[in-house]
Amino acid sequence: MSQLRKDPIVDRWVIIAAERGRRPSDFAPTRQPVSASGCPLCEGSEHKTPPEVFAIRDGTPPNSPGWRVRVVPNKFPALAIEGEVNRSGIGLFDHMNGIGAHEVIIETPDHFADMAQASPEHIVDVFTAFEQRTHELRRDERFRHVIIFRNYGAAAGASLTHPHSQLIALPIVPKIVKDKLQSAREYYRHKERCIFCDLIEQEIALPDRVVYQNQHFIILSPFAARFPFSVEIYPLQHSYDFVLMDDAERLSLAEALKFVLTKYRTVLNDPAYNLILQTAPNTLPRPGHPDYWDSIQCDYHWHIEIMPRLTKMAGFEWGTGFYINPVSPEDAAEYLRGEVGEEGIADSSPAEQEAEDE
Amino acid sequence: MSQLRKDPIVDRWVIIAAERGRRPSDFAPTRQPVSASGCPLCEGSEHKTPPEVFAIRDGTPPNSPGWRVRVVPNKFPALAIEGEVNRSGIGLFDHMNGIGAHEVIIETPDHFADMAQASPEHIVDVFTAFEQRTHELRRDERFRHVIIFRNYGAAAGASLTHPHSQLIALPIVPKIVKDKLQSAREYYRHKERCIFCDLIEQEIALPDRVVYQNQHFIILSPFAARFPFSVEIYPLQHSYDFVLMDDAERLSLAEALKFVLTKYRTVLNDPAYNLILQTAPNTLPRPGHPDYWDSIQCDYHWHIEIMPRLTKMAGFEWGTGFYINPVSPEDAAEYLRGEVGEEGIADSSPAEQEAEDE
Repeated sequence: MSQLRKDPIVDRWVIIAAERGRRPSDFAPTRQPVSASGCPLCEGSEHKTPPEVFAIRDGTPPNSPGWRVRVVPNKFPALAIEGEVNRSGIGLFDHMNGIGAHEVIIETPDHFADMAQASPEHIVDVFTAFEQRTHELRRDERFRHVIIFRNYGAAAGASLTHPHSQLIALPIVPKIVKDKLQSAREYYRHKERCIFCDLIEQEIALPDRVVYQNQHFIILSPFAARFPFSVEIYPLQHSYDFVLMDDAERLSLAEALKFVLTKYRTVLNDPAYNLILQTAPNTLPRPGHPDYWDSIQCDYHWHIEIMPRLTKMAGFEWGTGFYINPVSPEDAAEYLRGEVGEEGIADSSPAEQEAEDE
Repeated sequence: MSQLRKDPIVDRWVIIAAERGRRPSDFAPTRQPVSASGCPLCEGSEHKTPPEVFAIRDGTPPNSPGWRVRVVPNKFPALAIEGEVNRSGIGLFDHMNGIGAHEVIIETPDHFADMAQASPEHIVDVFTAFEQRTHELRRDERFRHVIIFRNYGAAAGASLTHPHSQLIALPIVPKIVKDKLQSAREYYRHKERCIFCDLIEQEIALPDRVVYQNQHFIILSPFAARFPFSVEIYPLQHSYDFVLMDDAERLSLAEALKFVLTKYRTVLNDPAYNLILQTAPNTLPRPGHPDYWDSIQCDYHWHIEIMPRLTKMAGFEWGTGFYINPVSPEDAAEYLRGEVGEEGIADSSPAEQEAEDE
C-alpha cells in the first residue's frame, strides 16, 4: 500500500506510491503515450479496465460497448480504496496509510475526440459523471476532499491520449484548498461578503482581464496568473459546491469551457494543459466541526483553473513559490478574447526570445 | 518595468515580466537551446553579455578572456535593478514595481564542461562567486532575500546549455522561505533546538535515507520527497547562512555535490535537474525587526535542494499542493548510494510502467 507522508518542516503531504516503484531507467524521456490500437480506454476494450463504477449508457449492460461516459477505478491507483486511515509517526516524521479513491472518467468512447470539439451536451454528460462520483465518494466518511482534474497532453503529465479526467478522494484537505478556504473565511468574517464574488464584481467593472462571459459563468485571466494564458472559470452566482449546478448552469459551463479550449487550440496551437475543479471539501455534517461546514456555504466559491503548460517550472519557482510569468494577464485576455492576431500586441522584439531564463 | 503581483486569495507572489512579452507562437515546443557557436556565455564572447559584476581571473582585465568564473547581470532580467520599491493596490489587488537583481553566474569558460566532472577546487570557485554576490547584494536595503539556483537541462527550464547558475535578489521574503523560517522558529521556541539539526540526528541514527556523508556535510533522501531521487544537502554543524562556510567546509561541500551529481549521471542517465540554495534571508540589522534577525541564527539551518526532473507536475499537484512520488525515498537512497544496479530493488513489474498517471 502507498503511504502519505508529511514534510517535517513545511505543511506539505506527499503520496509515496511504492507499488508504482520504478527503476531509474524507467524514467527515460523517450517513453511515448499508448497508441490508439492498445488503448485500454477505447470502446470495445472495457475488459482492460477494472469494472466500471458509473456510466451513461443507452440501456447497454455494464462493462460492454454502448456508453457515452464511463468511470472506472484507476488500474494503478495512487491510493487504495480498502482499509482504515491510520495516522502514526516516528520522531519528527508523520505518516498515514495511503487510503483514498483514484478513478478515471473516460469522457468519450472515441480515442480521437477532443473536448474543445465536443457538443455542449456531451460536456454536460462529463459533468454529470463528476457530480455522481463526488456524491458517492462523499458518503465515505474516511474522505475529506474530492479533487477532479484533467491532464491534457504529455507535457501536462498525461500518459494516455484517450480523452479522460481523473478523480482523487483524499483523507485530508490538501494545503492549497485549505489556504483558499482560510483566506475566504477571514475575508467573510471582516466583510460578510464572499471574496470571490467581490473579485468577480471588480473584474467586471474594469474588464481588462475578462476573457468571456455568458449567462451563468465568467472566465478571467487572473490578476496574478502564475502561467501564461491560464484562466479561472467562476459561476456568476455565489455557490460553494459544483454539484449544486442546475441544468441551465451545466450547459452554460459547457459552453464556457468549450470557448476557452477552442481558443487554446486556435491561439496557442493546441497546448498541453492542466484543468482543476476546485470545490468545497466534503460538507456532510461531521461531529466536532459544525461551524466549519455550515459557514463554508457563505464564504467559499467553487471554480475551475486551467493552466496551459507553455513554460517550465525552474529552480526559482521550486525554491521560492514565486513565479515568473512572461505574458501579462491583460495581454493574455486580449489574445484569448480573439481581439488580436498573431502579429502581436506589445513591441516585444524577436531578439528577446533567444534566452528564456537568461 | 516588470511588476510583482500578489494573488488576492492565497499568499503567492508572481513576477509579471512584461518586457519579456511573448506572442502565443513564441511558446512553440520546438525551440532549441543555443548551440556552442552562438553561446553568449563562452570565453571570447564577453562582449555579448552586460559588463561583469564579479570574476575570478588570473590578472586579466574585466570583460576579456582569462577567467574561471564570471558573474554578469542577466541580459533579460525578470526584475530591474534601478528604482524604488513602491507598493500599491487597487481594490483586492496588491502590486509593487519589479525591483530586484537578476544575475548569471557563468561557472566555467568551457561550454561543454559539467559540474559533475569539475574539480572540487573549481566548484569552490563557484561557491566563492555565490558568496561574493550575496554579500554585495545584501548591502542593498531594498532586497530582503537572495535566492541562488541552477537549472540544468531543458526539462528543468534551462535555455542555455553553457554551465551556469542564476541569482535573484527579491524585495520580499518568498512564501516557501517564510514557511520554512516560521516552522523552524516555532520548533525552536518549544524545544530550544534547531529542527534541522534534530532531523539530521534522527536520520543518522537510522540511516535508510542517508545518501552520503563526509566530514562537514550530509546528503539525505527526504522522508517526504516530492520528486523521485531528489536530495537535500545539509551542513552537519548548525549554520544559518551559507556565506559563513570556511575553506574546509567549502571543499567538503564541493565533494558532496560532485558525489551526487555524478550519481545522477551514472544512475539516472544525466537527468535535467533544479538545484536551489536555501539560506537565511538578508540578516543585516533592520530597524523594527531586531528579534527576527537575531534569533534566526539559532533556529534556521541552510541547505541545498536538488530535484531531478523525471516526472511531470500534473493537475493533481497543481490543484492540491499534494505530490505523488513513485519512488520511495529509501529506495532512492539505496540507488544513489550505489548499492544496487539497474536490475532493481523492488519487484515492480514492467507492465505497471505503461500508465504513468492512470
